[in-house]
Parts: sequence; structure tokens; C-alpha cells
Amino acid sequence: MIAPPSAAAARAARERSDALAKPLGALGRLEDAAAWVAACQGTCPPRPLERVRLTVLAGDHGVSHAGVSAYPREVTGAMVAAMAGGGSGANVLARQHGVAMQVLDIAVDADLGGLGPAVGRHRLRRSSGSIDTEDALRADEVRTALDAGAAIAAEEIAAGADLLLLGDLGIGNTTPAAALVAATFGVGADAVVGRGTGVDDAALAHKTEVVATALARAGARVDDPVQRLAALGSADLAVGVGFLCAAARAGVPVLLDGIVSLAELAVAEDLEPGVVAWCAAGHRSTEPAQQLALDKLGLEPLVDLGLRLGEGTGALTALPVLRSAVLLLREMALLADLAPGG
Amino acid sequence: MIAPPSAAAARAARERSDALAKPLGALGRLEDAAAWVAACQGTCPPRPLERVRLTVLAGDHGVSHAGVSAYPREVTGAMVAAMAGGGSGANVLARQHGVAMQVLDIAVDADLGGLGPAVGRHRLRRSSGSIDTEDALRADEVRTALDAGAAIAAEEIAAGADLLLLGDLGIGNTTPAAALVAATFGVGADAVVGRGTGVDDAALAHKTEVVATALARAGARVDDPVQRLAALGSADLAVGVGFLCAAARAGVPVLLDGIVSLAELAVAEDLEPGVVAWCAAGHRSTEPAQQLALDKLGLEPLVDLGLRLGEGTGALTALPVLRSAVLLLREMALLADLAPGG
Repeated sequence: MIAPPSAAAARAARERSDALAKPLGALGRLEDAAAWVAACQGTCPPRPLERVRLTVLAGDHGVSHAGVSAYPREVTGAMVAAMAGGGSGANVLARQHGVAMQVLDIAVDADLGGLGPAVGRHRLRRSSGSIDTEDALRADEVRTALDAGAAIAAEEIAAGADLLLLGDLGIGNTTPAAALVAATFGVGADAVVGRGTGVDDAALAHKTEVVATALARAGARVDDPVQRLAALGSADLAVGVGFLCAAARAGVPVLLDGIVSLAELAVAEDLEPGVVAWCAAGHRSTEPAQQLALDKLGLEPLVDLGLRLGEGTGALTALPVLRSAVLLLREMALLADLAPGG
Repeated sequence: MIAPPSAAAARAARERSDALAKPLGALGRLEDAAAWVAACQGTCPPRPLERVRLTVLAGDHGVSHAGVSAYPREVTGAMVAAMAGGGSGANVLARQHGVAMQVLDIAVDADLGGLGPAVGRHRLRRSSGSIDTEDALRADEVRTALDAGAAIAAEEIAAGADLLLLGDLGIGNTTPAAALVAATFGVGADAVVGRGTGVDDAALAHKTEVVATALARAGARVDDPVQRLAALGSADLAVGVGFLCAAARAGVPVLLDGIVSLAELAVAEDLEPGVVAWCAAGHRSTEPAQQLALDKLGLEPLVDLGLRLGEGTGALTALPVLRSAVLLLREMALLADLAPGG
């Protein structure tokens, strides 16, 4: 069990919120968000969320050959290159908000050596197994991936981080993510499969069948979170699970993104209970699996804009709202300090 | 009829959005928001929303003696002083987002001369009439207030503004705002009255009765928007109406706040059809009148966080999301520029 954020700091934040020069509760969910940051930092008022870092984990997926995406697998490598070059949506928003970001090739099915050694320094393999017909990873590969995720989180924390953001990039990634959410919460493929990059009705039906087949193939093994990642996950998803567990163990809060980071959290919470308390939901995506995981994990996202791009863009869009929550709690005048009548 | 934003620029923005390195529609409502900014600017891609200015209109309301608020009237002046001193919630968020802000005493029932001449330079009167028993303003005062609003907007635009924000401050202000919304859309007091600063059930019932009495007293005169402001409005609300009309006439977009700015827009749209096309909704507040006006005017807010503070805080919280929409459309790589396979 991972130690929870400080209840005392959360209480102090609530009391301070009530003492600000505003009606009780008038800042709505920003008051909840500020209390969460205070609890994670163990102090009230919380420090501003100045040092924010985003890691985007990139990988391909065996199922992307099975027609579950509107785009061919080759797009993954092209998007990693675009991100390394600063042209992805995540880059744009990271610049807007002063967020340090990196993209890591965990399991892209392409040679990305031309992008420099940093991108590939945690590379584990080429793609992951096609979960409808085979395991995504061996159990020892899952453990290696979890360790890699912990190492990445440790690097990020060592670089100085008030808040970590986690994104994912890879054609086909919503399929294993949906399968992991279904297996974690014991629901069927119908309840979790969405259109991902924008597949049509026929492809949606096919994708649902792929997930149902994968769930049937994996069977009861998936009660164990490591076996679940082996049977239904992928290298990049397993790395994300390790990242979230390590951030929570280190007491560094994480702002989540879309379906992939919610799937990672769902598994992480089974692996090391208590991780969820260190995570806030950035946005509500259009993917049913993300919404189901939000509900099951008791998370309410900060923004709901119909985004379905991944890459951390939902977390980045929500970041200034979380920052606002902290700044309001820190900087607003207190009711007691108001001068009557100006 | 006010000239609409450019349909051609909106179309160009949609086409550019579809050509970005992402799945079609994957940025959800950010794509709509970016197209709206492009249309207002008449150019694609739109310029970043760098120069943003917030005006907060402050006033008291006769009905605040009638027990419609959880706070005494004296709080209005104290909050104007806090805002002039930089300690309000709006100040905190304006600093966060680099927004130039001013608070103007339109009709505060206190002597705020000590705050300097700028705060009072558009002052019209002390409070407004108690709408349950008398008109808020004379018709000539409404016209003076509309002109003052236009003058304030002109000042703001002359100072350089890519986007204007409008907020309101004043104990009791949700009561005339709710009455204006009810009169504009022909609904009863039950459909519009909310808890404002946080009144209890008994005060909510009383506030509903005050609005119902005001609507009955005003009668059919309120079909005319100037008479509506005279009978049910207030000086600060009438100034806000003039501000919105002038901004739209000048072709400068406005990001709205809560119930007061939506009530102002509802009247402005009747006074000069076409204003609404120049406005975006910042946030969904907890006030029923705000939600009703959003629906009737066809606006979907960018954030929904349960805020009910006013002062422009909802618009300021939403501002970085609108900025993100513009930056994504400007800066993301195009699909056609993606290098295959990295």
C-alpha cells in the first residue's frame, strides 16, 4: 500500500479555502483540486506548479495489423519524429504552458535512431504481440517494462518536478488500453471499445471483436496485474504502469491524459494500491474505456472538450486549470483582511 | 444587424484543422473554438490571443436590502477595494494569464474615491432601484449607461485587445440578472433563480418571489430591451450591455463569464441582433439563469467547474483553453509534412 497524500494538508487547504474573500464553495471544483495539490505536497498553501514535465511513451501494437485503427502503423514513427521536431499538438501546448517534454521510443516498429540516442534510451522491443492471437509481452518483459517506467519517473523527478504528466503515442494503442480496462473492471468489450482515431461502424465492430477475442483468450490469468499486462497490454502501457507506481511511491503528483493513462492507472492501482490518490484526471476523452475507468477510480476530470488525440494533450489542456486552483488558494485575500466599504 | 464574423475565415480554419497532423476532429471542441477566433479576426490561421483585457463592472442593487444575498451590501465596496489592491480571485487569474484588468465603480453604494480617479471615471449613480418595488433605472439612465459601456469598450479596444473579457461585481447582482434572463426568454422566476453567493432554501424561495414580483410589476414593457433594463436591470448591467454591443460592432471578440454577462448578452442580442456571434462562453456556472441563457443563445462553455464567483473568474479560467485552440491551429505540423517512418 502506497502512503496516501497528507490528510492534514488537505484539511488545512479546505480551511484556507473557506477563509478566502469569496462565498463558501464559490470556486467549485477548483477548491477540490487545490486541496489535492496541497495534500500531495504535504503543505498549505501549496507551492505553484511551476516545474511540470511531460513524458510521452511511444509504441506500436500487434493489433494495428488487424484493422483496429483508421491509420497505418507507419504513422507512429512519423508522429514520434514530428514530436521530436516540435510539431505535434503536445509540443504546441507544452510550449504554451512552459512544460518540459520528452518522447521516448518504447516499442515503435521502426528504426528511429536518426532522432538521436535520447529518444531510444528506454527502448524495449519492436511493437508488442497482437493480443487477439498471442500475449503482448512475456511476464519477464512486463517486469522489465515496469522497471523502465520507474527509472523514467525517477529521471523526471530528479530533474525537478512539481507535477508529472504522462502521455502515449502509437497507432492501435486504444485497443490494448480498452482490453486492460475491461479486464480490470470485469466488463465486456462492448462497454469499453471506442472509435480511437476515428474508425467507422464496421471497424468499430471489428475492434470490439478483437478485444472480446483477446479477453476470451486471456481468461482468468488477468486477475493478476502482471499477467494482465502480459496478455492484453503492450510494452509502452507496461512502462506507463511502472511510471505511475514510481511517481506515487515518490510522492509526486501526476496529471492524467486519456484512455491510455487511465488504463495504466487501472492496472497500477491493482499492482500497488494507493496510486490513484496521487493522480488527477486532466480531461474526459470520447473513449468509453476512459470514462468507465474514471468512474470506477472515482476521478472527475478538469475539462471535457471532446478531445481524442492522446499524446498528453488532454493533460496539457487541463494544466492551467490546476495551476489556477493552486494560485487562487495561495494568493487571494482573506475575508478577514477585507476593509469595510473600501 | 451587426455584421457577422467572417464565414470564409471560419471555413479556412476548418480546412486547416482537417489538414493538421492528427485524426479528423481529434481536437474536439478546440477545433470549433479556433474556427470562431479565425472568423472574428477574419484571417486563418488566427493570431495568438496575446492582448487580453478584462473589465469588471461594479455596482450595488436595490434588492440587496431585500435579503436576496448571503452577504450585506457593504461587501461590494470592500471587494472593489480588494480588487483594486490585487487580492481578488480575478486579480490572481489575470496575473497568471497576463491579462490587463480594471475594475470600474459604476454604481457602488459607497464612496470609493480613495481608490483613485480611474475606478470612478464611469460612475453613474449610487446603487440601482429595487426591482421588486420600483424601476432600476430611468430610460434616460439606461441610454447613458449603454453609452458608457460603449465608451469603456472603445477605451479597451484602443489600448489594444485581441480579446475582451467582461466581469461583474456586486452583492445582489444575480437577482436582476435572473430577472432579465426570465424576461428575455419568457420564462418564470422558478426557471432562473439560483443560490448566488450561497443563500439557504428560505432565502432562495424569497429571492424567487422577489424576481416573480419584479416580473409581474414590469409587465409587457419588458418586450423592449431598453425598458427591460430600466425595469429589471441595474446600472452595471446596462453598462455591460453597451459594452458587448460596442465590442461586436467593432469586431472584437468577447469571452463571457457567468450569469451577469449572459444576462447582458441576452439583452444585447435583442438590442442589436448579431452580438452573440462575437461572444464565446467561458464557463458554465451553477446559476440556472446562466445555463438557460447559454442554451437559448446556442453557446457551449469551454469549462464546467461549478464556479459561482463572478468577477470574470470563469472567463479567466477558460482563457488558456481558448488560447490553446488558437495555438494548435497555428503551430501544429500538417499531415502532408509528416516524414514517413521518422
